[in-house]
Amino acid sequence: MKITTISSGDRFSLKRSIDAGTEEQRKTVRSIIEDVRRHGNQAVKAYTEKFDGISLDDTRVTEEEIKQAYSLLDDRLLQVIRQAIRNIQEYHERQLQSSWFYHRKDGTMLGQKITALDSAGVYVPGGTAAYPSSVLMNVIPALTAGVERIVLVTPPGKDGQLSPGVLAAASELGIKEIYKMGGAQAIAALAYGTETIESVDKITGPGNIYVALAKREVFGDVDIDMIAGPSEIVVLADDTAVPKEIAADLLSQAEHDKLSSSVLVTDSAALAQAVQSEVNEQLDTLPRKAIAEASIREYGHIYVAESMDEAVEAVNALAPEHLEIITKSPEALIGGIKHAGAIFLGRYSPEPVGDYFAGPNHVLPTNGTARFSSPLNVTDFQKKSSIISYSQKAFEEQAESVAAFARLEGLEAHARSIEARGRRNSK
Amino acid sequence: MKITTISSGDRFSLKRSIDAGTEEQRKTVRSIIEDVRRHGNQAVKAYTEKFDGISLDDTRVTEEEIKQAYSLLDDRLLQVIRQAIRNIQEYHERQLQSSWFYHRKDGTMLGQKITALDSAGVYVPGGTAAYPSSVLMNVIPALTAGVERIVLVTPPGKDGQLSPGVLAAASELGIKEIYKMGGAQAIAALAYGTETIESVDKITGPGNIYVALAKREVFGDVDIDMIAGPSEIVVLADDTAVPKEIAADLLSQAEHDKLSSSVLVTDSAALAQAVQSEVNEQLDTLPRKAIAEASIREYGHIYVAESMDEAVEAVNALAPEHLEIITKSPEALIGGIKHAGAIFLGRYSPEPVGDYFAGPNHVLPTNGTARFSSPLNVTDFQKKSSIISYSQKAFEEQAESVAAFARLEGLEAHARSIEARGRRNSK
Repeated sequence: MKITTISSGDRFSLKRSIDAGTEEQRKTVRSIIEDVRRHGNQAVKAYTEKFDGISLDDTRVTEEEIKQAYSLLDDRLLQVIRQAIRNIQEYHERQLQSSWFYHRKDGTMLGQKITALDSAGVYVPGGTAAYPSSVLMNVIPALTAGVERIVLVTPPGKDGQLSPGVLAAASELGIKEIYKMGGAQAIAALAYGTETIESVDKITGPGNIYVALAKREVFGDVDIDMIAGPSEIVVLADDTAVPKEIAADLLSQAEHDKLSSSVLVTDSAALAQAVQSEVNEQLDTLPRKAIAEASIREYGHIYVAESMDEAVEAVNALAPEHLEIITKSPEALIGGIKHAGAIFLGRYSPEPVGDYFAGPNHVLPTNGTARFSSPLNVTDFQKKSSIISYSQKAFEEQAESVAAFARLEGLEAHARSIEARGRRNSK
Repeated sequence: MKITTISSGDRFSLKRSIDAGTEEQRKTVRSIIEDVRRHGNQAVKAYTEKFDGISLDDTRVTEEEIKQAYSLLDDRLLQVIRQAIRNIQEYHERQLQSSWFYHRKDGTMLGQKITALDSAGVYVPGGTAAYPSSVLMNVIPALTAGVERIVLVTPPGKDGQLSPGVLAAASELGIKEIYKMGGAQAIAALAYGTETIESVDKITGPGNIYVALAKREVFGDVDIDMIAGPSEIVVLADDTAVPKEIAADLLSQAEHDKLSSSVLVTDSAALAQAVQSEVNEQLDTLPRKAIAEASIREYGHIYVAESMDEAVEAVNALAPEHLEIITKSPEALIGGIKHAGAIFLGRYSPEPVGDYFAGPNHVLPTNGTARFSSPLNVTDFQKKSSIISYSQKAFEEQAESVAAFARLEGLEAHARSIEARGRRNSK
């Protein structure tokens, strides 16, 4: 890993040039979506044959398949899933918003009503990327918000099978509507519906470039979550940190993906050196060495700042998805952190604990987008309605100026709708 | 207006086929964005000459121009703007979220930190659509959230001038950074910056098809608000309502745009008849008759339900931007309303009062999107960071199962980052 000495005002970025899709891919995705809108299940079936290499007459997962999934499942995994569900629910319940209202002296009542979405669709990638944790992290916020209908879609293997872990996780959460479909065709089916699948109001979950482009395409007709980029971690540490622990954390990020970025920001040149050699040492024995090594080479970096203040400044410029603060007193630094998806405090809070188990969501803003977006959360599945109730007194006091404002904006009918309620018109 | 008798289970939609942009327009927008990214101010200048018909060397609005705007401004308008600002601030302050945290018995601390975005850009349309109220409704939520830098862009007239009302409204809110630019070039300048304009984190505000396509294009690199469609109102009324008032409200929506939709849902056939003839009568004397008439003809509708319950069901299916409830006891119906952007209760709360003055935001989900989105609000300019602080005790209790989970998901380095913290490794 490259070590760079930095100073205040330096510009940093975690931004990697992500595959935004070619004009060709955009066209393909648009035509798949059009096709599914026009021909429904028949189109979905054709694309599943083409892209997933299997012909399915019924894409709906059966009770039988769920039972089978449990029988195939490692029991320790099931236990961990159940504890994780309890932790994740406990945390997300605290994100619930309440409706509120208030009155003005003149009798006017104003408020904000909170309502859950009616339905949500969760996309779960197939193959090696089929993580039970993705199911928990996308479904639990929607469940907690009160969404009544939650649909899960995930691409089948060539044998028509799905990951037992994914099916069990869904079943543990009471999800009954699961379809074997993936790619842009699954996004289209969720957004616009087919003969057998009713459309949903919001689509979340990670996927490949075709899924990402399809989500962008249907955005507006339905809501979507943020388009996720590659994962990243920034560790902010001082000389009280244990180099081998920091190195292990950097590598746990690097093994995800060649595009993953692992960064250490520290005020200690000695720690920088020690972590650098630890990383090289630990890399050698990793099963996913090839991926981790490429990621560290391309996007791994160690920045040495002159002070903790400058280090914090650098972290805010990076706006990382995951931030570990491993210093003498991590709590003291939280106040200064403006941009980060998830903040892990102290040596006993390594990022994997948060990812899997602690309770907060692991669907986080990546690639610098923590500047303006949030972890997936319950409020993403709730919406607000404004409530306005004017008293006759308040209305009559303000009618004239509101009508005047309307006329100044050139909207006569607006003014007349006010004046239609003059005293003389009272019933 | 057409009158239709409805019954339970009927399907309704306010959805109008909105101009989603041609392939040609998408290409144009993408090339404008690329051009601004590559050539900055020079490109913006060229497009301003091309589309707005004026050559500007400096796009930044000066103190002098602000002073001039006040001198041109109707004093009543300024007074209404100032009162509206007080009302809008009072309401939006109640939307502020607070950070929170909690501890588990084992000493683990979990929390959610709320931070304001650093910067936001507001697009204000030019010409006849240059509404001071657009400035208030987009800027005040950002200000209330604590956004430190708020930039306003709006296309200049052929004479290089901007609307005095828009400039004064911005100045009343303390906005100092205002640029004379519009269209896709303004969106690109806000999203990616130029030599003189720093990029922003989020872009909000209405605009034409090119602005909408540009926002969709930059979404992901920056955040954006919902792509707004044409406006609509649904009035839910019973036989206690005053027909001339309902008609006036329907027309205040219809005069906005030929695509506007004005709908009455009622359980009273008599009211339906009376409103129908009132609408025809009032139409004749409207300055914007041509627009209102086209809108009523195409998208105006009166639905007569057999009961209030069925009427409420119909309203939820429509998911209107604006909903007026003008019945004997409107409050009693709020509970049943699931999908609406803003709900106006009683005859003294006509929609224009809410639009301009009451306090709630007038940037609302249109075209049925109230099913999944909210009025523009303070939380749109705040973001969340999860906080995770495990105690040594909690970590050691759970390390094993978390490591097991990681291995079952095939992520060895994740497991090792946990195990690097075994007791024996404590410093």
